[in-house]
Amino acid sequence: MSFQAQADFNRLDPDHGTLSFGGIEPSTFLEPDADVRAELCVRLTPRYADSTRDVRVRYSLNGAAAAPVVVVQGGISAGRDVVATAGGGPGWWSGIAGPGRALDTRRCRVLSIDWLELADLGDAPAVDSADQADAIAAVLDALGVRRIRAYVGSSYGAMVGLAFAARHPQRLDHLVAIAGAHRAHPLSVALRNIQREIVRLGARLGDADAGLDLARRLAMTTYRGEREFAERCADAPVLEGGRFRFAEEEWLKAAGSSFVRRFDGARYLALSESIDLHRVEPEAVQVPTTLIGISTDRVVPLSDLCDLQRRCGAAASLHVIDSRYGHDAFLKEETQISALLSEAFASIGAA
Amino acid sequence: MSFQAQADFNRLDPDHGTLSFGGIEPSTFLEPDADVRAELCVRLTPRYADSTRDVRVRYSLNGAAAAPVVVVQGGISAGRDVVATAGGGPGWWSGIAGPGRALDTRRCRVLSIDWLELADLGDAPAVDSADQADAIAAVLDALGVRRIRAYVGSSYGAMVGLAFAARHPQRLDHLVAIAGAHRAHPLSVALRNIQREIVRLGARLGDADAGLDLARRLAMTTYRGEREFAERCADAPVLEGGRFRFAEEEWLKAAGSSFVRRFDGARYLALSESIDLHRVEPEAVQVPTTLIGISTDRVVPLSDLCDLQRRCGAAASLHVIDSRYGHDAFLKEETQISALLSEAFASIGAA
Repeated sequence: MSFQAQADFNRLDPDHGTLSFGGIEPSTFLEPDADVRAELCVRLTPRYADSTRDVRVRYSLNGAAAAPVVVVQGGISAGRDVVATAGGGPGWWSGIAGPGRALDTRRCRVLSIDWLELADLGDAPAVDSADQADAIAAVLDALGVRRIRAYVGSSYGAMVGLAFAARHPQRLDHLVAIAGAHRAHPLSVALRNIQREIVRLGARLGDADAGLDLARRLAMTTYRGEREFAERCADAPVLEGGRFRFAEEEWLKAAGSSFVRRFDGARYLALSESIDLHRVEPEAVQVPTTLIGISTDRVVPLSDLCDLQRRCGAAASLHVIDSRYGHDAFLKEETQISALLSEAFASIGAA
Repeated sequence: MSFQAQADFNRLDPDHGTLSFGGIEPSTFLEPDADVRAELCVRLTPRYADSTRDVRVRYSLNGAAAAPVVVVQGGISAGRDVVATAGGGPGWWSGIAGPGRALDTRRCRVLSIDWLELADLGDAPAVDSADQADAIAAVLDALGVRRIRAYVGSSYGAMVGLAFAARHPQRLDHLVAIAGAHRAHPLSVALRNIQREIVRLGARLGDADAGLDLARRLAMTTYRGEREFAERCADAPVLEGGRFRFAEEEWLKAAGSSFVRRFDGARYLALSESIDLHRVEPEAVQVPTTLIGISTDRVVPLSDLCDLQRRCGAAASLHVIDSRYGHDAFLKEETQISALLSEAFASIGAA
């Protein structure tokens, strides 16, 4: 089956065209050919709430009109701007998704949402990966897309992909989960718990930005490779103004302060906790699945991906990327990821 | 050579008996047979200061009178109370050092100091591992011990041992360095830098204890094993009072609060930074050396110990302990450590 043959599944569905989207005009309906960056209101029942509510979801849709849809989701700090566009900037995965890339927007449409955060869900005490999965399904409903060719998720996006496959198996042909498993590893849970406590400490004592900055620095140490640290930070510390400066600190400081400019504490707390709450029974994933792990990933150990592969409810293959970059290899190793994506799509007849 | 044959090196040296120890009466001199827990004043020139000063050093000496001396030093939070004694409590290594143990205090005397901290050094901007090594050498001078049978150091104690061997090669027969290398790994430097920034954040914003608590929680995640976390924290989080409680958090909280009761921020800052400043050229270690690494150690990667072994200036053997406990295996794996110590001592003719 080619991408083209699949396209008829993804046309606008007139049955859905008359739905109310919580009062927001689904103007994007009228422009299926264009790249879209818009907002919808969908009805959701969050996992940790007991009633249905209207939730605004920001999404983007980029690619050839009426082509099959591929949902792409990244880590907690990645938004809907996957592909480079005029309206959405450079795109966080533009080396992998775009015209002529492995995820070729001349042959498919890339759909992505901005992660829901706690404020989006009203009175729910937490945002679950299942809520994000349901939001994506609701956006597909709203856009009249019955079935997607693939869901490609990295990090938290992979966790949400597993939840999506478990909850909406009829909505996708194939799942690609990169550097994400059916649960967060307890050591990673511990490290994120400390990150959240740092954010709370800063907020409680009156310097929320300092807390968020330090929490991000800590997260960075988990995202990157051990060898990468050794190579980047070979220089001995320098004594300046009575205090030693370490190369490691300078690198982390830059990462922390740039994060503070583009993120906020409440969003960080909700999405970080959402990773730790994530739990999907591998047996419930009854969709053909490609799992991609990273040799040096200290956030998602390969042992958890092996466990997931073994227990998956449908055929699942596990591939390992060899990288110096640790967890962030899903952003850095464009060549290896592209090759694996092309292989996965070839195996489902979409090459 | 047996322990006994070595004893004459370690008798009180009358040449030293008349030295002034900065005005403190070296009363311990008069009781060489007893277990000693005392304080000395020694003259030191700290590495990052430009003048000599008197420094108080707290030490303990436990074991058979006139037996060969073995210096034992642990991590930054371990003090001089190595062996279980009436005056010093249970001893942090009492399963390995004590009567009938691998480090048998019926056949040797265990000497240990409390680590120097910044306040001990006057105007120096930092405490170096070389300063600790020089303090140990000065205590040996004061006690009239020309040469020790072995220096056995773990974690920071191993780093100081390497500095001691490099600076005072004529003072020891053998070095045993457990879970410590010639430098701190940059990833560990990064993580300790964040710990210190958390301590500073708490202090700056008015809750120093909260900062120290969180820093220790972070340190704990590096000290323990990945699998150990997975086994201890298998339970799903529980929603209590509108907030999820994670098993990981409960474990870390207990570790953090008990640490705050026995440590203080200034000491933590100085000793943590001292680890990161530590640098010894392996080639400068010209003393027979036994290196012991831990399979799951995420603070001191085996690759650094391999590098150290290869470059060591004298014969060095590297042994690897298989453990689930990570870096803290030096405290937990008493059987494996004891066997390796017995082997090391046998190889130098002391069994």
